[in-house]
Amino acid sequence: MGITNKKWILKSRPKGLVEQSNFELIEENLPDIEEDQVLIQTEYLSVDPTQRMWLTDVPGYLPPIQIDEVIRSGGMGRIIQSKNEKFKEGDLVNGFVGWQTHQISDGKGYRIVPELLPIPTMLNVLGLTGVTAYFGLLDIGQPKEGETVLVSGAAGATGSVVAQIAKIKGCNVIGIAGGDEKCEWLNNCGLDHVIDYKNSNARKELQKIATSGIDIYFDNVGGPLLEAVLFQINLNARIVICGSISNYASEEMPVGPRNLSALIIQRARMEGFLVLDYLDRMDEAIQELSKWLMEGKIQHREDIQEGIENCPETLNRLFTGQNLGKQILKI
Amino acid sequence: MGITNKKWILKSRPKGLVEQSNFELIEENLPDIEEDQVLIQTEYLSVDPTQRMWLTDVPGYLPPIQIDEVIRSGGMGRIIQSKNEKFKEGDLVNGFVGWQTHQISDGKGYRIVPELLPIPTMLNVLGLTGVTAYFGLLDIGQPKEGETVLVSGAAGATGSVVAQIAKIKGCNVIGIAGGDEKCEWLNNCGLDHVIDYKNSNARKELQKIATSGIDIYFDNVGGPLLEAVLFQINLNARIVICGSISNYASEEMPVGPRNLSALIIQRARMEGFLVLDYLDRMDEAIQELSKWLMEGKIQHREDIQEGIENCPETLNRLFTGQNLGKQILKI
Repeated sequence: MGITNKKWILKSRPKGLVEQSNFELIEENLPDIEEDQVLIQTEYLSVDPTQRMWLTDVPGYLPPIQIDEVIRSGGMGRIIQSKNEKFKEGDLVNGFVGWQTHQISDGKGYRIVPELLPIPTMLNVLGLTGVTAYFGLLDIGQPKEGETVLVSGAAGATGSVVAQIAKIKGCNVIGIAGGDEKCEWLNNCGLDHVIDYKNSNARKELQKIATSGIDIYFDNVGGPLLEAVLFQINLNARIVICGSISNYASEEMPVGPRNLSALIIQRARMEGFLVLDYLDRMDEAIQELSKWLMEGKIQHREDIQEGIENCPETLNRLFTGQNLGKQILKI
Repeated sequence: MGITNKKWILKSRPKGLVEQSNFELIEENLPDIEEDQVLIQTEYLSVDPTQRMWLTDVPGYLPPIQIDEVIRSGGMGRIIQSKNEKFKEGDLVNGFVGWQTHQISDGKGYRIVPELLPIPTMLNVLGLTGVTAYFGLLDIGQPKEGETVLVSGAAGATGSVVAQIAKIKGCNVIGIAGGDEKCEWLNNCGLDHVIDYKNSNARKELQKIATSGIDIYFDNVGGPLLEAVLFQINLNARIVICGSISNYASEEMPVGPRNLSALIIQRARMEGFLVLDYLDRMDEAIQELSKWLMEGKIQHREDIQEGIENCPETLNRLFTGQNLGKQILKI
């Protein structure tokens, strides 16, 4: 008797938050694996804002997920059968496992991960979100000691790592997040200032706090805050456009900043990037991030939901701000 | 009997286009010059969009012009008396001469200019607008042979030089300008495509023409076009924010581009700059630009108005699109 795979496929394109009816959870019997193939059992899914973008039929850095295709998702799986010499039974592998419990693969796109830390921690600080933080801040933002770094979505998986690397690099760090619990956690992470956008006027708070201006803005959220920030940037400021979570699940066109001439006056730069361009430098990032983790310099939190049936709801948690830290789904 | 200086001073801050009543033309008798001073007679004013920004009371890269101050303006003057060993009678000097016929100065901020070309040409291609084009395109835009360069305000003093340098560098160049006469001139300058935004839908034309995408957008105008361009940028595109003439004299808040996430998808960069940061490299630019002028590789046009009494109207010509080429006022 073969293995049964439960998988979520796309049935219709969501508008705004996803709904159960946009997907269908189906079961399929998998055949026996053939020469050079492996059977992978999904253990954990990394639930990331970018997945919402893949559900929309617009060109992006990866093609949109097509109707009837399994939902693309990063995660960790276990090799439970192998006829491929590169993998052996029991290996933990990282890659685009998708919203499914099992799969047969030729192993391409998967790398074996040494099990030195709990899997959720690896998917968080050492996963694509942590590596995004590393290259986005250091390569694109290029922080210098004493500079002021502002991070939006600061309690999120990428934002929290950005903020803490900026502290390690000797910067003055301001984080923006929503709600008491997230802000308290960020204070414990050692940020210099935390702005609660849900319980205050973030623009006004920023004016009060960032009195010596902003040198780097690491933007995870998009939306109207960018305009407020542009009014406060310093000479040669850098704005790292990492994500725009406020827009991914929104049915409205986002708001654009009306004061881009601030870039002229301050000779400033706004730049987008994708971690996929840094795949050949992953080891560098993982080595540094691991070191900081061991030294206790990077605090981290994972929000772990459970069960393949909860994929859609878990994705929505990112856009309603329910997740505390990296959103993970245990299968 | 001393010399009489006629000068325009600021009386009230304009909204939108300037009006005669925002200024006052006054006469003053100048005293005799003292040791280390020179008497400068203004010959030509360089009339530039940035002047409109200086009339507004917002922080910029230079302080706003204050009420009762003479209007700041670049231009060329002649030394008609000198008690300063660095200048002699008859020297042509370049600097911020202001909207006035004469002035007494210690000579600081003025440089002597060899009179190898007609003065309006020097103020145009070899002046700050030409040098802005040079560094903005080459340093910030970094064009590579075969790339597609889009220039807005392409018939203007900066835009036309940008477009022609891009051609010299082997790029495919698209210019946007308003009206038959400007577009015809740009075609004669050798641009690959010219879009007349007054007689067509620039967004749609751009989609038709820039089929292989846009690598560099040199933005002289700001406003809604940027959003259209962002939908068409290529991987690693560079957007050079040079000016936003559509906003300087506008009473409304400008429109912001709502699709900045294109910067992420295309790993693209948007950067502002000011030619004032390149003053120590002026010689390099002037040498190169002079060479291209001599070789006939850069076409140029000056729109020369006359008379100190016409300063305000001449400034408005830039914002109503009346000027054909570099706007100059002969005093």
